[in-house]
Amino acid sequence: MSRLKTIEWIDGSVRIIDQTRLPMELVYEDVGSIQQMYDAIKVLKVRGAPAIGIAAAFGLYLGMKDFTEKGSIGNFLETLDKKADFLAESRPTAVNLFWAIKRVQNQAKKLAAHSDITINDLKNSLLQEALNVLEEDRLTGKAIGEAGVKILKGKKNILTHCNAGGLATAEYGTALAPIYLGTENGLNFHVYADETRPLLQGARITTFELMKAGIPVTLICDNMSAVVMAKGEIDAVIVGADRIAANGDTANKIGTYGLALIAKAHNVPFYVAAPFSTFDLSLESGNLIPIEERDASEIICGFGKQTAPAETNVFNPAFDVTPSSLIDAFITEKGIIFPPYSININAAFNS
Amino acid sequence: MSRLKTIEWIDGSVRIIDQTRLPMELVYEDVGSIQQMYDAIKVLKVRGAPAIGIAAAFGLYLGMKDFTEKGSIGNFLETLDKKADFLAESRPTAVNLFWAIKRVQNQAKKLAAHSDITINDLKNSLLQEALNVLEEDRLTGKAIGEAGVKILKGKKNILTHCNAGGLATAEYGTALAPIYLGTENGLNFHVYADETRPLLQGARITTFELMKAGIPVTLICDNMSAVVMAKGEIDAVIVGADRIAANGDTANKIGTYGLALIAKAHNVPFYVAAPFSTFDLSLESGNLIPIEERDASEIICGFGKQTAPAETNVFNPAFDVTPSSLIDAFITEKGIIFPPYSININAAFNS
Repeated sequence: MSRLKTIEWIDGSVRIIDQTRLPMELVYEDVGSIQQMYDAIKVLKVRGAPAIGIAAAFGLYLGMKDFTEKGSIGNFLETLDKKADFLAESRPTAVNLFWAIKRVQNQAKKLAAHSDITINDLKNSLLQEALNVLEEDRLTGKAIGEAGVKILKGKKNILTHCNAGGLATAEYGTALAPIYLGTENGLNFHVYADETRPLLQGARITTFELMKAGIPVTLICDNMSAVVMAKGEIDAVIVGADRIAANGDTANKIGTYGLALIAKAHNVPFYVAAPFSTFDLSLESGNLIPIEERDASEIICGFGKQTAPAETNVFNPAFDVTPSSLIDAFITEKGIIFPPYSININAAFNS
Repeated sequence: MSRLKTIEWIDGSVRIIDQTRLPMELVYEDVGSIQQMYDAIKVLKVRGAPAIGIAAAFGLYLGMKDFTEKGSIGNFLETLDKKADFLAESRPTAVNLFWAIKRVQNQAKKLAAHSDITINDLKNSLLQEALNVLEEDRLTGKAIGEAGVKILKGKKNILTHCNAGGLATAEYGTALAPIYLGTENGLNFHVYADETRPLLQGARITTFELMKAGIPVTLICDNMSAVVMAKGEIDAVIVGADRIAANGDTANKIGTYGLALIAKAHNVPFYVAAPFSTFDLSLESGNLIPIEERDASEIICGFGKQTAPAETNVFNPAFDVTPSSLIDAFITEKGIIFPPYSININAAFNS
């Protein structure tokens, strides 16, 4: 079984898979500048919250690597702030993007407080921290997978929405990590993938990476999940998350909320797989999560072909919020969190 | 407000809208032969159960109009049977198609029993019966609209799935008939249209015909209905139907069942608008309705662009069955049918 490497550091540049070319072509791109990384994030060559974070971490290093050795530390930190602000604008609602940028930035700032530090030390620290973000994400995915395998014991047919797979992270993914880990350990999963309108991440990416890994997958349109569940063919639903409030309400790709309602109506367990970094305990509930609305053209003309009258009025929210009452468990890198979430999420963070 | 004429009899031929060209172009086609009508039905230039029935009725006349005046009545009826069989193969699962063909055929057979009948009389009877099918469908749509307006009193934002509008019938449609009638009578509706994957009838056709009629419409992807309802923005859902069992279980375009579940979860009333001809009282429940599965290419490559790996395994049911427990009322040309359906549907047919 071959898992794809979404993002790697090779010979002084960042090798990414250009996901806008999937599923037609598997094209790698070597990103060597902050501007190139900004563009790659903006046009969704890199996508998925964790992968965006990793890309941004490397992007910040790329933006500083040519800073003159003779410059002052103060000037280095000022430039770093500017580059960080620039990079943060590539996807304005991506929490992991801000988190990763801040993390790399803080590492340099901490080091800069030491008196014997050089510009070169600071640059190296940026690169090292980006590499840490990458490796930690890989390990996080693996740990989510191990936790997920336990909860999926005895289940075969798993429905997922969008792509929270390897291609959204460094390697294992979140929602798909238990599928990969379980398959490595001899379990037989079969995945139903929602195509996930409007951008079709399920059709383009989830099918692609599962087929690459030799895992059976069946593609359906988003509006077919109810009939598949009514036939008794789904044992569990697993999705990723973009942001999780303190009470467990979960923002994820548009369509997740409806899917959770449909799963509940059929008594199919509904799991959210996400790292601790996705929880935002500053938000009491999902009502406080802002929902990005995207361009009408994604729906009217999303495949290079016009599918509705050009002047059609469109509502195109990128995410929705699933109330925690519809979620049977969170699968995290530190184990499973069960309800009641307003107690257990807090407890997990303080244990 | 201008409603489109889906199908009309003009100067010896049938004028249809070529719906495969929508929404890019409004192109009329004059159909003058049975072969041309067969092709038009087969490639979905004419679509929607009632419109297909009307088209087939005219198609049968077109197939017989050049039958020699000197031929025998017996030979005429034999030829009629052959032409009917040919036409019935254009869409093998369309109940209205068979119904309309049989009706026109029977009319000729009945007349043929009279001793003083001529070939010309028989031809005229075929044409007259096709015109009757058309006019009755128009009146049925209008009556459904009038019944629907009553049940929609005080409601503004209406969600619909697929296209059960004027372009699926002679003129008013079924699900959209109350919208048209209500608008004519000064009500202000705003329609949310599901795009309706895989064939996008909502995006291509429902938006088009409502905009032509000056009725505000907002297009969403199928997976967005839950979030729109959660925002309190939907006052009612209305859909059409392909086949309704004696207990009220309803087969309709794929996605209808999930939508009904989502409506129920938000306490949004869910209505099915359909003529009596859609009820099939020979079927005790929806379990007995066969569900057509369509080609994988509609999902993998449905927009003239490949959106999933070519060899992806696909499940592509054309319809699903909504249990009658999720349906708040049926809107028919003879009024509203409320639960309990196992009693009230039967009563409506026997009243």
